[in-house]
Amino acid sequence: MPAYNAFYGQSGGVTSVINASAAGVIQTARKYPEHINKLYVGENGILGALTENLIDVSLESDSDIEALRHTPCGAFGSCRYKLKSLQEHKREYERLIEVFKAHDIRYFFYNGGGDSQDTAHKVSQLSESMDYPITCIGVPKTIDNDLPFTDSSPGFASVAKYVAVSILEASLDVASMSSTSTKVFVMEVMGRHAGWIAAAAGLATSDDHDLGPDIILLPEVEFKQQAFLDKVNATIHRKGHCCVVVSEGVKTPDGKFLSDSGVTDAFGHAQLGGVAPVVADLIKHADGHKCHWAVCDYLQRAARHIAAATDVEHAYALGRAAVEFAVQGENAVMPTIVRTSNNPYRWEVGKAPLSKVANVEEMMPPEYIDEDGFFITEACRKYLQPLIVGEDYPPYKNGLPDYVVLQKHKVAQRTPSFTVS
Amino acid sequence: MPAYNAFYGQSGGVTSVINASAAGVIQTARKYPEHINKLYVGENGILGALTENLIDVSLESDSDIEALRHTPCGAFGSCRYKLKSLQEHKREYERLIEVFKAHDIRYFFYNGGGDSQDTAHKVSQLSESMDYPITCIGVPKTIDNDLPFTDSSPGFASVAKYVAVSILEASLDVASMSSTSTKVFVMEVMGRHAGWIAAAAGLATSDDHDLGPDIILLPEVEFKQQAFLDKVNATIHRKGHCCVVVSEGVKTPDGKFLSDSGVTDAFGHAQLGGVAPVVADLIKHADGHKCHWAVCDYLQRAARHIAAATDVEHAYALGRAAVEFAVQGENAVMPTIVRTSNNPYRWEVGKAPLSKVANVEEMMPPEYIDEDGFFITEACRKYLQPLIVGEDYPPYKNGLPDYVVLQKHKVAQRTPSFTVS
Repeated sequence: MPAYNAFYGQSGGVTSVINASAAGVIQTARKYPEHINKLYVGENGILGALTENLIDVSLESDSDIEALRHTPCGAFGSCRYKLKSLQEHKREYERLIEVFKAHDIRYFFYNGGGDSQDTAHKVSQLSESMDYPITCIGVPKTIDNDLPFTDSSPGFASVAKYVAVSILEASLDVASMSSTSTKVFVMEVMGRHAGWIAAAAGLATSDDHDLGPDIILLPEVEFKQQAFLDKVNATIHRKGHCCVVVSEGVKTPDGKFLSDSGVTDAFGHAQLGGVAPVVADLIKHADGHKCHWAVCDYLQRAARHIAAATDVEHAYALGRAAVEFAVQGENAVMPTIVRTSNNPYRWEVGKAPLSKVANVEEMMPPEYIDEDGFFITEACRKYLQPLIVGEDYPPYKNGLPDYVVLQKHKVAQRTPSFTVS
Repeated sequence: MPAYNAFYGQSGGVTSVINASAAGVIQTARKYPEHINKLYVGENGILGALTENLIDVSLESDSDIEALRHTPCGAFGSCRYKLKSLQEHKREYERLIEVFKAHDIRYFFYNGGGDSQDTAHKVSQLSESMDYPITCIGVPKTIDNDLPFTDSSPGFASVAKYVAVSILEASLDVASMSSTSTKVFVMEVMGRHAGWIAAAAGLATSDDHDLGPDIILLPEVEFKQQAFLDKVNATIHRKGHCCVVVSEGVKTPDGKFLSDSGVTDAFGHAQLGGVAPVVADLIKHADGHKCHWAVCDYLQRAARHIAAATDVEHAYALGRAAVEFAVQGENAVMPTIVRTSNNPYRWEVGKAPLSKVANVEEMMPPEYIDEDGFFITEACRKYLQPLIVGEDYPPYKNGLPDYVVLQKHKVAQRTPSFTVS
């Protein structure tokens, strides 16, 4: 069997460990020269394939590729671009085949969340319908932890660690200040549909002490304003202050995002996002408590400085497994994390068919949410706890993490230019 | 000379290293039993003295006191309470003497920023006017870095490191996403009057790469909206995206906080703080760029997980020096950091009289701000760079920092109860 070239792309919102998966793909591909000749990486994911902007990673130094393990976000650029059906986007699909043929690409590794696994699945369908053989393997990644079949998704555990560490520290702050000043601290985290990230903040609360969040607002639970305010007041009455973690996706009973509930700027424009200030305002105007609030936004998913060691291992292992599956003749699958033991935590690599992964979102199960809807259960804690264990600090230089910026040598173009619709 | 008891209190907004100063005070006081008998810590700073809520730290274990070195925020509670003049607050001053006499307290260590140094100074004046001898030593602390005489203030360097690391990471994120999505990232940091914290974000920008912030908005520079928008657009044109760091204290030409410029909630109430969403809105509505924004708030000053090693050393050393000054017979002074060499960075402990420290705020000097007002100069970078060097990670347990919560045994009250006005 002759060796062919391979394509790898990063897709969707980035994470602090997606480059560790890239390192897994790149370093493993180098071990199988009898199967994989050159590995080309798309600049900005699938867009790099469509526009024939390919990066030849064989020209990067070994040490720079190794440094991807500790460098957050998408070293090759990511994209938010979802291929529609073969009927609707016929021109794009034909273009992909044109570029793949021009560069002798017969392996397709796509690193992303649900939408990206859908893209990988469509490319594998394309391979059949257009009679050009391509081995398609998805590499899971999402901070939202909402991919099916995998016990957790690379990227999530590090955000989980970041939010748990951050709210633990902020709870110490508000506890210090509450006698004469701030009574409530509100921290907004990501999670438009699934509350896994907000839930992870609950790991900072333990029986040992009275720190961490007192209330967690999840998108899976309809926001009940009075019950929430009552719980804030009861908490302040009991311990002098209250810490709230709120997911950006929390909705009011009428189905609207709470973040959209009427905040306008000086021009009357609806303001950009931000559910934490809305929650802080509700508390302040209802009961007069002094509030502070934070919005983590990109800081949480880019925070490689406090990544979970387990997450880095998962990310690398799934990148490596994707290539191993491909050279073993697997196709249209995604490697997954299978938890084989909870205590001690043990895991191994499994696999799931792309056809079943694409476009499925895993929400928090009801048994992970407390009866009153304002906290996680012990079952949820047991699931989350092992994921955040272990630190994997990047090297530092002059006080800052020494993140790598690659050379990104472009492959000479061989096809006419193409504009994405 | 007989030994007397001592008082220590934490005051003002807390930091990630103020407890390291507490450890310095407590551990050093234990070394001088011939001068200092018991060390009592005020619960919530000076309020603990006024209300006779004193904590006997001799009952804490040595390992718990040692753990204060790596535990952020105020382990004994802080307060925002400023004593007015002797005339206005005569009853409070008499009460202080009553409590100090009842507990044989003749040493007063107060750990805080400008207002707190003013309190320490007033207590030393009280000592003279009320003819009760008290040795008063201030211990500097402020994330704002605006105390005079000291080269830097404990607490600042760790916030500096946090914001530089965070914006470095976020800049990698927006660079990854900008081809199809977010073009601008705005990060809000603290600094109501002085721009030191926002300035420190500039350390993430270097000649080696094109990461970190492109624009820094300082409270020392009047916000010029069109010039700002032009610079954002020019940056996006050049590199595809733009990172902005904005200090909460930025003001418009009419002298108002930019954060107050007309953002209202659904009820028409002015919204609580938040200059980042205001800046993001300006950009979005002027030029249509997709923006993301983060507000660090307490996360930045409580972030012991990424504290600067130099800062932890400073904080501990100044706590130790305060006690050493006191037992050497100094009075009404504050230990300071004196920089003796920039490269390699070297420092030693100096001292300044409380009378000159109180109520002075050190702003960024003009030579630290770029000509166009949107960035820091090389001189500023040279000052800031050594401060963020070195990591001092706390120990971890189950994936989270193992911060200590003290026992806080109360000293039996000996005076009638007292209500603070």
